[in-house]
Amino acid sequence: MCGVVGIYSNKNISKELYYSLYSMQHRGQESCGMAIVDGKHINYRKDMGLVGDVFKEEELSKLEGNMGIGHVRYSTAGGSHLANCQPLVGSCRKREIALAHNGNLVNANYLRDMLEEDGYMFQANSDTEVILYILARYYKGDIIESLKMTMDYIKGAYSLVIMSEDELVGVRDPHGFRPLKLGKKDDEFIFASEDCAIDILGGEVIRDVEPGEIIVIKNGEMKSYFYSENYKEVKKSCIFEHIYFARNDANIDNVNVYDFRIKCGEILAKNDDIKADIVVPVPDSGWAGAIGYSNESKLPISEGLVKNRYVGRTFIKPTQEEREMGVKIKLNPLTSVVKGKSVVLVDDSVVRGTTSKLIIQSLREAGASEIHLRITSPPVKFSCYYGIDTPNRSKLIASQNSLEEIREYIGCDTLEFLDIDGMIEATQGKSTFCKACFDGNYPVKKIDKEELLSC
Amino acid sequence: MCGVVGIYSNKNISKELYYSLYSMQHRGQESCGMAIVDGKHINYRKDMGLVGDVFKEEELSKLEGNMGIGHVRYSTAGGSHLANCQPLVGSCRKREIALAHNGNLVNANYLRDMLEEDGYMFQANSDTEVILYILARYYKGDIIESLKMTMDYIKGAYSLVIMSEDELVGVRDPHGFRPLKLGKKDDEFIFASEDCAIDILGGEVIRDVEPGEIIVIKNGEMKSYFYSENYKEVKKSCIFEHIYFARNDANIDNVNVYDFRIKCGEILAKNDDIKADIVVPVPDSGWAGAIGYSNESKLPISEGLVKNRYVGRTFIKPTQEEREMGVKIKLNPLTSVVKGKSVVLVDDSVVRGTTSKLIIQSLREAGASEIHLRITSPPVKFSCYYGIDTPNRSKLIASQNSLEEIREYIGCDTLEFLDIDGMIEATQGKSTFCKACFDGNYPVKKIDKEELLSC
Amino acid sequence: MCGVVGIYSNKNISKELYYSLYSMQHRGQESCGMAIVDGKHINYRKDMGLVGDVFKEEELSKLEGNMGIGHVRYSTAGGSHLANCQPLVGSCRKREIALAHNGNLVNANYLRDMLEEDGYMFQANSDTEVILYILARYYKGDIIESLKMTMDYIKGAYSLVIMSEDELVGVRDPHGFRPLKLGKKDDEFIFASEDCAIDILGGEVIRDVEPGEIIVIKNGEMKSYFYSENYKEVKKSCIFEHIYFARNDANIDNVNVYDFRIKCGEILAKNDDIKADIVVPVPDSGWAGAIGYSNESKLPISEGLVKNRYVGRTFIKPTQEEREMGVKIKLNPLTSVVKGKSVVLVDDSVVRGTTSKLIIQSLREAGASEIHLRITSPPVKFSCYYGIDTPNRSKLIASQNSLEEIREYIGCDTLEFLDIDGMIEATQGKSTFCKACFDGNYPVKKIDKEELLSC
Amino acid sequence: MCGVVGIYSNKNISKELYYSLYSMQHRGQESCGMAIVDGKHINYRKDMGLVGDVFKEEELSKLEGNMGIGHVRYSTAGGSHLANCQPLVGSCRKREIALAHNGNLVNANYLRDMLEEDGYMFQANSDTEVILYILARYYKGDIIESLKMTMDYIKGAYSLVIMSEDELVGVRDPHGFRPLKLGKKDDEFIFASEDCAIDILGGEVIRDVEPGEIIVIKNGEMKSYFYSENYKEVKKSCIFEHIYFARNDANIDNVNVYDFRIKCGEILAKNDDIKADIVVPVPDSGWAGAIGYSNESKLPISEGLVKNRYVGRTFIKPTQEEREMGVKIKLNPLTSVVKGKSVVLVDDSVVRGTTSKLIIQSLREAGASEIHLRITSPPVKFSCYYGIDTPNRSKLIASQNSLEEIREYIGCDTLEFLDIDGMIEATQGKSTFCKACFDGNYPVKKIDKEELLSC
Repeated sequence: MCGVVGIYSNKNISKELYYSLYSMQHRGQESCGMAIVDGKHINYRKDMGLVGDVFKEEELSKLEGNMGIGHVRYSTAGGSHLANCQPLVGSCRKREIALAHNGNLVNANYLRDMLEEDGYMFQANSDTEVILYILARYYKGDIIESLKMTMDYIKGAYSLVIMSEDELVGVRDPHGFRPLKLGKKDDEFIFASEDCAIDILGGEVIRDVEPGEIIVIKNGEMKSYFYSENYKEVKKSCIFEHIYFARNDANIDNVNVYDFRIKCGEILAKNDDIKADIVVPVPDSGWAGAIGYSNESKLPISEGLVKNRYVGRTFIKPTQEEREMGVKIKLNPLTSVVKGKSVVLVDDSVVRGTTSKLIIQSLREAGASEIHLRITSPPVKFSCYYGIDTPNRSKLIASQNSLEEIREYIGCDTLEFLDIDGMIEATQGKSTFCKACFDGNYPVKKIDKEELLSC
Repeated sequence: MCGVVGIYSNKNISKELYYSLYSMQHRGQESCGMAIVDGKHINYRKDMGLVGDVFKEEELSKLEGNMGIGHVRYSTAGGSHLANCQPLVGSCRKREIALAHNGNLVNANYLRDMLEEDGYMFQANSDTEVILYILARYYKGDIIESLKMTMDYIKGAYSLVIMSEDELVGVRDPHGFRPLKLGKKDDEFIFASEDCAIDILGGEVIRDVEPGEIIVIKNGEMKSYFYSENYKEVKKSCIFEHIYFARNDANIDNVNVYDFRIKCGEILAKNDDIKADIVVPVPDSGWAGAIGYSNESKLPISEGLVKNRYVGRTFIKPTQEEREMGVKIKLNPLTSVVKGKSVVLVDDSVVRGTTSKLIIQSLREAGASEIHLRITSPPVKFSCYYGIDTPNRSKLIASQNSLEEIREYIGCDTLEFLDIDGMIEATQGKSTFCKACFDGNYPVKKIDKEELLSC
Repeated sequence: MCGVVGIYSNKNISKELYYSLYSMQHRGQESCGMAIVDGKHINYRKDMGLVGDVFKEEELSKLEGNMGIGHVRYSTAGGSHLANCQPLVGSCRKREIALAHNGNLVNANYLRDMLEEDGYMFQANSDTEVILYILARYYKGDIIESLKMTMDYIKGAYSLVIMSEDELVGVRDPHGFRPLKLGKKDDEFIFASEDCAIDILGGEVIRDVEPGEIIVIKNGEMKSYFYSENYKEVKKSCIFEHIYFARNDANIDNVNVYDFRIKCGEILAKNDDIKADIVVPVPDSGWAGAIGYSNESKLPISEGLVKNRYVGRTFIKPTQEEREMGVKIKLNPLTSVVKGKSVVLVDDSVVRGTTSKLIIQSLREAGASEIHLRITSPPVKFSCYYGIDTPNRSKLIASQNSLEEIREYIGCDTLEFLDIDGMIEATQGKSTFCKACFDGNYPVKKIDKEELLSC
Repeated sequence: MCGVVGIYSNKNISKELYYSLYSMQHRGQESCGMAIVDGKHINYRKDMGLVGDVFKEEELSKLEGNMGIGHVRYSTAGGSHLANCQPLVGSCRKREIALAHNGNLVNANYLRDMLEEDGYMFQANSDTEVILYILARYYKGDIIESLKMTMDYIKGAYSLVIMSEDELVGVRDPHGFRPLKLGKKDDEFIFASEDCAIDILGGEVIRDVEPGEIIVIKNGEMKSYFYSENYKEVKKSCIFEHIYFARNDANIDNVNVYDFRIKCGEILAKNDDIKADIVVPVPDSGWAGAIGYSNESKLPISEGLVKNRYVGRTFIKPTQEEREMGVKIKLNPLTSVVKGKSVVLVDDSVVRGTTSKLIIQSLREAGASEIHLRITSPPVKFSCYYGIDTPNRSKLIASQNSLEEIREYIGCDTLEFLDIDGMIEATQGKSTFCKACFDGNYPVKKIDKEELLSC
């Protein structure tokens, strides 16, 4: 759960990196960073915090150059540490390399052990450093060759942007778990996790980087390689990007995210015969699904929950008694809308169920007569090994409980999820997907137990 | 354009003030502050910045007490200065007073001149200091008496929370321009600009403080006074609070804000016969009106603009060339939604017209075939003297131009505003309003030309 | 215990103010500030912290103008608050005034009560605000007249720099307790508490502002006034400035501070027949006295205590057990110097005696065989009401104890102080002094019991 | 030019590390850091800035454990970067290692090339990372063995403290260029660059770590090893530590630093027959030499230059015209002392000569009639490769100019340096020294041209 960007241009691109990262802030709020080639050397800055806080005019003016990469990193509980900020920058065989990574290896610990056995010293605890070290080991000047060898080692999910002194590379793992788009603006090439990072620059999105593809920009030209000629993996685009993680304006592997979300709501409503007064979205994640549901059901949509736009990272920790305030500060029920009403409450997904429970409780206090929770994706039953920050399986409510048990825990009157077939129907056959979090069919097996931090 | 809160309790209320201010952050992002009585003295902290940044655990732990007031202040161009942060705290005749103000006096300069002539020294440039000084002048122990005398002097819009060592007072000006709610939670009394600041504490909203009313909480009891027995002013509740400024969950002078906004959209649609494919709200201000419009017109609503949730105060200033990026970083058109479509674009109001112009430009670039801008309030033709931060009249696009000229400038295919009658219809006769920004009928005349900063 | 500066020029002086304040940092480390006239208005910035931390290039570039005043404020226990930072800036009768103050009124509370009774509202708790308010009350355009009236009210110690839109004023109280120098550099006029603030600008020190004198710089010309024609007060220059507070390069009321300190050491040695091996100064305050003592006694001087140059404000609070570390981090005994030696330890003054005690203890641990403490000023027996931050009388060790009791508490083998006659001899008759802290003869009686913060 | 410390205890030592680093702040002001074992893992914090700014109560409370190492790093022009802060912490073969380094390798680039050729990726640009990587390569559980192998590779100056999960190691290079002391306090072992870091903890300095020695503390016991049995290098203690870098309270390789400095002044005076009125030290570096000079010459010492105690890192950059202010803010001449006097000005060393020139200029302006500059060390003619931050040889004034040319450039009337024999005499034969900066006899040849950053 991170965002990456890379820009190759013939003018200073530090501000473009800034805008691109700013547009992808939703993909990671813990830390951010940029590395830029000043013609000869790679300079960088990275720190904990939001893009707008880490980079001011002064910092940007110190980071000038025509090529660069950037990264935003998601907040995970344990691994908040400056050493894990990206891009990683290093030098090997007198060449400098910078690397930014979105995804999660399944064999990072195994590879790390292997490298440590050979005397390599790790200075962070992310799987990104593992990629960098393997790349360095094989990098003797030809980045294509060393990347192909690296890709033989690393298993799992990775979308990478890599930069040496004179070339910019975009790489997507053979299953294409995580997104990576290629864009262009005049003579400029742009890699980015999402369309919005290209849109913001006034660039045009050209296409997705293909699974297993290595795209190199050098001397103003683009060349495409594949990590193996025999490569025949089926694309496994992460469907959770479409459900929750990506912005509405993203297109990932030919699927338009907003269309998909609307359709999920429509399909869910099609088989739903609940009688209710209004459809209320959980803001902001439930809006598109709720619109779809409203379209199909003809029930009017209404803003029954008001979101505080200023709730962010800087918020004091509520004590146990203040717990309820902690939720209400984010979402306050709109009494005038819900009082005495039978409400279809729509959200995009349920993971732990705790937030849903508190929302429903507060809607009841505001006087809703009935609450029918509708989730526009299937129950999340399995942990993700490919970079989505789902909790341990034991904490996934749908992994441990029947539909009725979930309903009872959450406290709604009725509960329905979109089923897997319905979800796939919403993709209109435009791609093939990893849906392991719903069905447990993992395209790549997890190799080691203890996990490194993903990105 | 500020928010005020006051809490009277028998336990420490520093965290409650924090939560209340946090919930009203939309009413002011420039600075914030709290003043709390520790039993004997008033301690305070105020600074530039958001509530979550100015107050951390450490600051809150230093501000303990059972009674306190708080303030969030809106960002205005010229007067960003620590000296203008509120609450103002001072001592006079061995009594300490803290005061927080939402509104704007029309005779502040006149009064300030008067006081300066008498040798008073002003240390800030806000009209709030004027109120404090007049109050101090007449305050000899009986706050009711001194407030009544103060209210004889000050003209214009003011909702005040005032605190001495042992009493909490809520005051609303005789026209009731700015909102002020009274709430209760067990033995606790709460004054706040909006319902959400009471909701968040689990309190119950009792009623609006009435125009001209002075409510005093002392020794655990509430007493109500009016500034003058002969008082017969008609309530002039600011309708722009309902249109734009307040949150959807606010109820001001018996009018539910969300209902009002929905109705404005419905009434606008009723007389509109435009043929179009979809209704697109300008997020977030246009949502409620767009839902109303969609309800009435039966045109489907669709999220054609994606808002970046992280755009806030910390953002580098774009150069002239980067201007477009500056808008796109906030609102990116959703090409898949608008391409080839005839769009009804709905927003709550137009002030300068510049943002509308840029949004329409980017929707056209995204392929919208027609754009019909619908504004769910009348054209803003006059400046506000009562605390809404409208620009000088010369910069109000509707003050200087015909409907056709505005349409041409903004670049939409058609343009309609809700008319004043329609807007009043949407209030369902539940109150009487100041609508001077639309019709120029100012309930209180402006007295001096050069303005002090409003709050 | 503060420092003030004022500069009148025909070019931008923000950097000159910066350098001047930086040079007087020893006079106050808690907060600092500058107010500058930009031709029309007074702009200012002030904050807690050192000059180098509060003012960076960016802040200075926002504060431009040809005339300005500045202030550094000493750290006092209770009153650390932004509201007490100086200069104070306000407006009255459409004129803006800024004021910076070094000293302490003895009747501030009395005056404050009087003003509060008249309805004045105080926003800080310093006596400087009292001066500002009285000045404002009488200021109707002629600053000389209003100053004379103000000086009739205020009693005690004050050196002031005051600035209106077009004039700069330096004022010294009728006893001249606190220093104030007048300097010149080309067409520029400079007021400053100490010579170093004029030296640093390449300016020439002209003379001391006289007790009771009001010097006004306006339209490029300097005029001198006295607060009263009948004025016949005897100058009472604070001798503690010479003993401890001022820098060695200061000249106050014709007495060169370094010369004075050397002489104090010499006179003390003249009557001292102790047999010892070396003279060790307590750095840095004891150096000049120790050199004088060594000159006269012919005992060699030796650095027996090493001072950590980085000990400043940012230091964690030591727990009780770490107390000793807290002293050693500042001053570490130089074992090779003191081991087995009979040491004459020289310091400039003893106030509470606690630091001396800890130093002597650590010298003993380092192996000093005998320690003879010699103090180059008399015992401090009385609190200062005129701006030196001496503690309450009960905490002055010499106020409560005999010489032998002090010696025993501190733990030295012998103890001698310079007597009052010796101290006066060291001034060579060049001025007349307030020495109330030694003899209790207060030139101005203290009027009220509870004190406001001094500056 | 850095300081290192390591503590092995049976109680939490985070505050002890703090005090130790604070006491060695003079050895490096650019950045600082601590790494502490919490029983299982090594946690660390490091950042740009002074010890008191980087570590507050909160940071220290997050770093608890019984064993730890710390580092302060000197400010060098180019390499200010967070990545270069120390200690370096990494893991290899499932073991964690932390390392802090004072010194400079002469073959770092050669070794780095070698490692890069083997596929190692460097993430900083310091020679410390080179040491860490070689150590990691050979570290298979026995730190002694891997250290011996590492010491076969690395050439130059290094004093190291190294920590694994359960052992603390102190290492000094075979020439003993940089100091490293061993101390003890009850059951606690302490390694530190200087005595003061042990003194501050109330510990006892046991001895110097010997050149080529590896001292390991494990399971509460200390063991000593030497890197090679055949080791016969002659100790080459850096004499510049004694001249300038170390504090007066340091003892390095049996030479007491303060004694040495006093003797240097005495020996210089012995052969000097200049007639003058006073001896003036350049504060603070010239004090000890000046006292020695005064002792021997019988000329009285006098503080002719006042140092501003607050000049530190946070200071705006003076423009060309303000250059003079920039010097005066640090050192202001004391006119009353120097006016009309013939002055012997004493400093410890001359490197570039620019500061001396400006000081002499300001003394002349203050009226000194003659200025005789006396330097208590020989002319610095050669760059240091072992960790002292001397500039490129071309910028060493004594490397390019005759005595007379230097005198003329600096602008003094006469100029004398202590000669090499005199300097050695002052060490009283207690050790053997590297004096390459004076005579060009480098104990270890420099291998590569382009330098990595030293520490």
